[in-house]
Amino acid sequence: MKKRAASDPRKRKGLTIVHTGDGKGKSTAAFGLALRAAGNKMKVFILQFMKGQWKAGERKMFSQMEPMVEFEAMGDGFTWDTNNPEQDRQTASKAWEIVKPKILSGDYPVVILDEINYVLNYRFLDEDEVLDTLRNKPESVHVICTGRNAPPALIELADLVTEMKCVKHPFKEQKIPAQKGIEF
Amino acid sequence: MKKRAASDPRKRKGLTIVHTGDGKGKSTAAFGLALRAAGNKMKVFILQFMKGQWKAGERKMFSQMEPMVEFEAMGDGFTWDTNNPEQDRQTASKAWEIVKPKILSGDYPVVILDEINYVLNYRFLDEDEVLDTLRNKPESVHVICTGRNAPPALIELADLVTEMKCVKHPFKEQKIPAQKGIEF
Repeated sequence: MKKRAASDPRKRKGLTIVHTGDGKGKSTAAFGLALRAAGNKMKVFILQFMKGQWKAGERKMFSQMEPMVEFEAMGDGFTWDTNNPEQDRQTASKAWEIVKPKILSGDYPVVILDEINYVLNYRFLDEDEVLDTLRNKPESVHVICTGRNAPPALIELADLVTEMKCVKHPFKEQKIPAQKGIEF
Repeated sequence: MKKRAASDPRKRKGLTIVHTGDGKGKSTAAFGLALRAAGNKMKVFILQFMKGQWKAGERKMFSQMEPMVEFEAMGDGFTWDTNNPEQDRQTASKAWEIVKPKILSGDYPVVILDEINYVLNYRFLDEDEVLDTLRNKPESVHVICTGRNAPPALIELADLVTEMKCVKHPFKEQKIPAQKGIEF
């Protein structure tokens, strides 16, 4: 009976979650979910598609959470060069080839594809390939996709979509520079 | 010269940040900021105004981050009873009396007032008292206020406001129950 309950799709359903919009908090909320999952002894894999955002405090904290949290940061050894779309596509593919088997393995109940929306929007990754993988992921796996301009087909497929909307931004309106511990 | 740079308001400005809206990620993004700040060796104080949300994975992880992260959860020993507004006001006041000196002390570069928007919206706390404290906080302190229906005066005062907007929600539309590691 217990087994039946566990396999009941109404009880356990790996969600595809999208954080999009022009506001703050898309990645930060995903990292908060990583924290929550790790606290529940659920393994988390984070792939950071964008370069150089990992000088942040998160990196240090996630390092301390290993092995519950594993991450791969594209800033290390990968380069993006939007003047060279072919190279960008190769960079994106390399990143995808790292994370796709992590999603499909079922070993990580939570997988974060940080800034993948950006990568999809710029067509650096094949949308169908990504969507197929999300459709065929193990039932138990939650995947969180972050970034501006999530493609409509991803929003359509997703279970949970939140738009982070910028209502007021100090760095634009008040010319206050980015603050350590908040922005990085 | 160094001292002047440090006191230059363009260099260092404690932000008042609001996460509001009907979508997910308001508290989660605040907790992600806590993670980032702690990783930058900035002390964080979290006051959770709402009851009983601290069976979550965050609690375990934040416990491991002590003393960089300190938290006070109103679920422990405090009770909310919306049939008894007077008692609710007392509960809110007790919580506020804990966190107000933490904000004003300057000992915590990051203070999270989780679900305070809800409490202000229901008038369980005096709005002027809270806004005055935010106006008079030490220059170096960032305060993050989360919850639905942030009062207009708080939005007006805040430096950074993000609305988390629900675009799609599985538990409402697809009758999927809340998922461990995601919802709690």
